Amino acid sequence: MNAVITEPGNLTLGTDGSMLGRTAGYEKFLGDMTGVYCDSGAFAEQLDQHGADHLVYSVAEHRADDGPGALIVGTSTLLPGAYGDEFAVTRGHLHAKADRAELYHCLSGHGVMLLETVDGESRAVELVAGQAVHVPGHWVHRSINVGAEPFVTLFCYSADAGQNYDLISRAGGMATMVVRDGDGWKALPNPDHTGYSL
Amino acid sequence: MNAVITEPGNLTLGTDGSMLGRTAGYEKFLGDMTGVYCDSGAFAEQLDQHGADHLVYSVAEHRADDGPGALIVGTSTLLPGAYGDEFAVTRGHLHAKADRAELYHCLSGHGVMLLETVDGESRAVELVAGQAVHVPGHWVHRSINVGAEPFVTLFCYSADAGQNYDLISRAGGMATMVVRDGDGWKALPNPDHTGYSL
Repeated sequence: MNAVITEPGNLTLGTDGSMLGRTAGYEKFLGDMTGVYCDSGAFAEQLDQHGADHLVYSVAEHRADDGPGALIVGTSTLLPGAYGDEFAVTRGHLHAKADRAELYHCLSGHGVMLLETVDGESRAVELVAGQAVHVPGHWVHRSINVGAEPFVTLFCYSADAGQNYDLISRAGGMATMVVRDGDGWKALPNPDHTGYSL
Repeated sequence: MNAVITEPGNLTLGTDGSMLGRTAGYEKFLGDMTGVYCDSGAFAEQLDQHGADHLVYSVAEHRADDGPGALIVGTSTLLPGAYGDEFAVTRGHLHAKADRAELYHCLSGHGVMLLETVDGESRAVELVAGQAVHVPGHWVHRSINVGAEPFVTLFCYSADAGQNYDLISRAGGMATMVVRDGDGWKALPNPDHTGYSL
């Protein structure tokens, strides 16, 4: 047989999102989040206060190979925050190959995985350490930090999935937003959402 | 679009291997492990002592759908034990679609993931809570409990991967065995291994 043999990845995952053995990663800063939040005044104020290069979330990942059965494993660390009443979010995406599923397993913090279909279904799944959400294909999804500490998840998905980020920005954001509700959170319709179009 | 929309899986994963939200699972008993361990006398003695229906490991899983991008997420709980000097193992497998990768993330206990290729490569990756191994395609793999508590891992792999268990039994076991070494463990060649043939 001519199978390409790839070295296994030995990983140490911290509850702080650190990942020994990572092969790649990226960081997102406040300046990358323009247009994401409803309350543009509150966002502008924080941009003034913290600067465009203020870290808002980071991703570490491990890829072994790129074959058809390959996976990407990693950690996502979303720092706490709010813009007006709206809690801090990741950009969110549908997979470019939309049928690709994804696992998110919460390692620490308190968050919500917001899931939506282009046909108008919406789910908000609350996550604390030890809870996980298995996101099937065809769900747009975004992490939201509703707590005071970093919201850290382990993720795993097919290496060929890709990310379609544009779908959400073209739709004026996701259909649902997650906002403060006393000491907790609630989901509200996003008034800026104009509907998804693939 | 005609995408089939599947409900997300909301899962609660205990460090004891419990999995609220599971869709399926199975258990393996001492009587299922005949021929797995080198020291057949030590195995027979435990079979006499504990009986064939003595639980040795269990798997809980969540499947959302069976499409090409679908995943299976679950927990594996391997109880501690030893047969002669050889630590308790799962049967082990190569994926039926051999290029399918798998993630194992240790939730509790102390184990080793033993990885082998049919061409003679071998790796023994030690795992405690917070450590993970990203098993690329084409690696035969098996969990081994080298501790005194259940060895619990979260796993995630492609729903279409399947398992080839027969490869290991036809080879007289994996090439490497993991045995007691004082208070720890070491990897030794398995004298019964006759080579893998696909």
